[in-house]
Amino acid sequence: MKNLEHIGIAVKSIEASIPLFSKLFNTEPYKEEFVAGEKVRTLFFNCGNVKIELLESTTEDGAIAKFIEKRGEGIHHLAFEVEDINQEMQRMKEEGFTLLNEQPKEGADHKLICFLHPKTTGGTLIELCQENKKGS
Amino acid sequence: MKNLEHIGIAVKSIEASIPLFSKLFNTEPYKEEFVAGEKVRTLFFNCGNVKIELLESTTEDGAIAKFIEKRGEGIHHLAFEVEDINQEMQRMKEEGFTLLNEQPKEGADHKLICFLHPKTTGGTLIELCQENKKGS
Repeated sequence: MKNLEHIGIAVKSIEASIPLFSKLFNTEPYKEEFVAGEKVRTLFFNCGNVKIELLESTTEDGAIAKFIEKRGEGIHHLAFEVEDINQEMQRMKEEGFTLLNEQPKEGADHKLICFLHPKTTGGTLIELCQENKKGS
Repeated sequence: MKNLEHIGIAVKSIEASIPLFSKLFNTEPYKEEFVAGEKVRTLFFNCGNVKIELLESTTEDGAIAKFIEKRGEGIHHLAFEVEDINQEMQRMKEEGFTLLNEQPKEGADHKLICFLHPKTTGGTLIELCQENKKGS
C-alpha cells in the first residue's frame, strides 16, 4: 500500500450534492464518469493529497443504493494505491482478509481495483487500486 | 482546506485491533496518545500520504462508544488540515455548516480542532485541524 488514493462517499444524487461538497472542500468537481460494471455515476473533487469520489447508484438495486438504504449517505470506502494489485491481493488473502473479487476489475479513473470485505477489515470497506496502463 | 491529515477509525479495543490494522496497512503503529478532553485513547499508523488514527473510548458514555453502539466499528471522521482554523471555521459557518464547537479545542497529535456536524456535510463527520504550535 503506497498512498490513500481516494475516498468514496455515497450520495443519493450527485446533482443535488455538488453545491454542498463544493462549499465544503472549497473547490469545484473536475471530472464525472459512469462505471457501467459497478452501476455507479461518479464525480471527483481534488482535495490536495487525496481525491474525493462521490458515488450515485444508477439502479435501485445497486450496491450504493443498498448501502444508503442501510447506513444513509456518507463514507463508502477508502481506496489505497498499490504498486502491483495482484501481489497485494495475494498478500491480503494470506493475511486473512476476504477479497470481494478474485480478479482485479475495472473501476473509475483508469484503475484496476479489488475490494476487501469490511467484516474482515474492522468495519471499513477497503479498495486496492492500481493505475490501469492498458486502459488509460 | 489544504490536505487530508488523517482518518479516524472507531474501534472497541485498540489492543485487539493492532494485529488486524498492522496487517492491513502493512506497517506497525508509531504513536499512542490519550486525549483526556475527548475521552479517547488513540493509536496512529502512517499510511504514506495520510495517517490513520484508531479511536477507543475510555468511558462507556463517550462519543466513540456511542458511535460504535449505533453504527458499529469503522470510519468515524475525516480530518482536513487548514492554515488558519479560526478563518476556516468562520468560512464554514457562513457556508451553512454547523460547527460542533464554537472555539477550536485541543485534539490529539498537537492539533487545534473543530468538528462539523455530519447532518450538514452529507453524512460525514469532518474535522478541521491546525498544528498547535504553542502546544507542541
